[in-house]
Amino acid sequence: MPFEVTILGCSSATPTADRHPSAQILNIRDNLMLIDCGEATQNQMLHYRIPHSRISSIFISHLHGDHYLGLNGLLATINFQGRVLPLDIYGPQPLEQMMLDHFRFSGTQLKFPLRFHVTQDQKREKLMETNKHEVFSIPLQHRIATTGFIFREKIGLRHINVEACETLNIPYVYYHDLKEGQDYKDDNGLIHRNDILTFPPSEIRSYAYISDTRFFAELAEEISGVDMLYHESTFLNELKERAEETFHTTALDAARMAKMAGVKKLILGHFSARYRDLTPLLNEAQTLFENSHLAIEGSRFSVD
Amino acid sequence: MPFEVTILGCSSATPTADRHPSAQILNIRDNLMLIDCGEATQNQMLHYRIPHSRISSIFISHLHGDHYLGLNGLLATINFQGRVLPLDIYGPQPLEQMMLDHFRFSGTQLKFPLRFHVTQDQKREKLMETNKHEVFSIPLQHRIATTGFIFREKIGLRHINVEACETLNIPYVYYHDLKEGQDYKDDNGLIHRNDILTFPPSEIRSYAYISDTRFFAELAEEISGVDMLYHESTFLNELKERAEETFHTTALDAARMAKMAGVKKLILGHFSARYRDLTPLLNEAQTLFENSHLAIEGSRFSVD
Repeated sequence: MPFEVTILGCSSATPTADRHPSAQILNIRDNLMLIDCGEATQNQMLHYRIPHSRISSIFISHLHGDHYLGLNGLLATINFQGRVLPLDIYGPQPLEQMMLDHFRFSGTQLKFPLRFHVTQDQKREKLMETNKHEVFSIPLQHRIATTGFIFREKIGLRHINVEACETLNIPYVYYHDLKEGQDYKDDNGLIHRNDILTFPPSEIRSYAYISDTRFFAELAEEISGVDMLYHESTFLNELKERAEETFHTTALDAARMAKMAGVKKLILGHFSARYRDLTPLLNEAQTLFENSHLAIEGSRFSVD
Repeated sequence: MPFEVTILGCSSATPTADRHPSAQILNIRDNLMLIDCGEATQNQMLHYRIPHSRISSIFISHLHGDHYLGLNGLLATINFQGRVLPLDIYGPQPLEQMMLDHFRFSGTQLKFPLRFHVTQDQKREKLMETNKHEVFSIPLQHRIATTGFIFREKIGLRHINVEACETLNIPYVYYHDLKEGQDYKDDNGLIHRNDILTFPPSEIRSYAYISDTRFFAELAEEISGVDMLYHESTFLNELKERAEETFHTTALDAARMAKMAGVKKLILGHFSARYRDLTPLLNEAQTLFENSHLAIEGSRFSVD
């Protein structure tokens, strides 16, 4: 089952001819979530053939324009397409009123339930859970209230040991119970232990989305051990001072964070428009953390 | 001197893989004005290499998202680029507060003077004038308050009759006075009449931008005799009922309007996403008005 991120935008504040502002789709077991929604996110979804209607929920990290200005346009398109399923949006408090103002002045009447959930940047918080995964917000340190997000699978069902079950002629109707951990009693009343008939569930997978923030060591604890980390890396280390002034992170510090937090894979993004060639940012990160990657638009990263 | 429109977006409410929402640049004698500003207008300007900083003023027809949701992102980019010149924005009253809310919640401090001018949809109004041109808003009939815009050159300077002036050895320093219509007195006190030394000024050129509206006959008077008309043509005539319900116009009715108003050239735009091939819209308009054109993105239309 997929656990995969598709990059829709990787630019920082100002777009370039080939880079759009922040947006990405996280697919956890076919549940599609949109993380940040910069301008033209709906166009990028068209471009990469991700149906707008597939999104179940949207997470907005903060209210800088490059992270949310595509939201009202996307919602209008979803509405035109006749959505009836509810859509959950998680974001800072003023976002709700700004959306409502746009709906009011544009005469928009949503045909689907839009459920807005306020995030706060003071402490870690569980935002939502389904039977498959849960999402947490964590405080970041940026110029305005900003949160990162952690997406974590829940423990799944056990996997059938097909060979063992077929040897014992266990009917298929019992497979679901076996996956849930039950033992099997055969026609002779003999108990077969579950751990002989099944394999353990898949390891739970996790993803942290960190954009935008200055580097601060305490973050490492919050995201400790996630499999895959997206971290902003707006600047090269030679502009560390500029990064500090603007509450952003360098590629080197993003790699440092990946190392400190013990993650398995690092995706670098939110690149300053000044970098036409992104290779130096990748090279810089890889000096500290080898399994680093660039969030090139259209690329997909999965946790195996 | 140019009088030219560059199309940046031609889709109606929902963008398609190759069509963006409404936006266009009008260049009148090197003064660049942006008319409507749908999502991703700033990206389209990058794509067609029109510097964001060149815009002197922005005209927003109405508050449906496909006509203004690119505005805050564009302003942020212009601000990042260090603009200091004032920027004038003309649009419906609630737009100002929505912009201010975004600036407040995103912590944006503009480094240039932004001057907002409220439009109203009750009667024709002169919005602005420079020494080269003037702009009027005119009421349209759409689902929410909407205005069209008329851009009209002012009468320019007369043109020097170089042959006549050189024959009389008139020094260059007098040319500006001649262009302004003054006669020339030579060293012997002899008066040479201006109409012998100059040619009349160029004909004034005009452009009307009409999007979005239902067809209504009275509009023809408002835009009577403009050289070039951009008119929305969301649907083919076979969907005339749908056009009426949604307060839009068919290609046939856009052509009818062009004919009634006696314009010279018609540009069709604001196409429904249902039309992958736009040729039928063009063909339909041309049955009534031959000098019709499709507002394909990137194309330029000028008044000769």
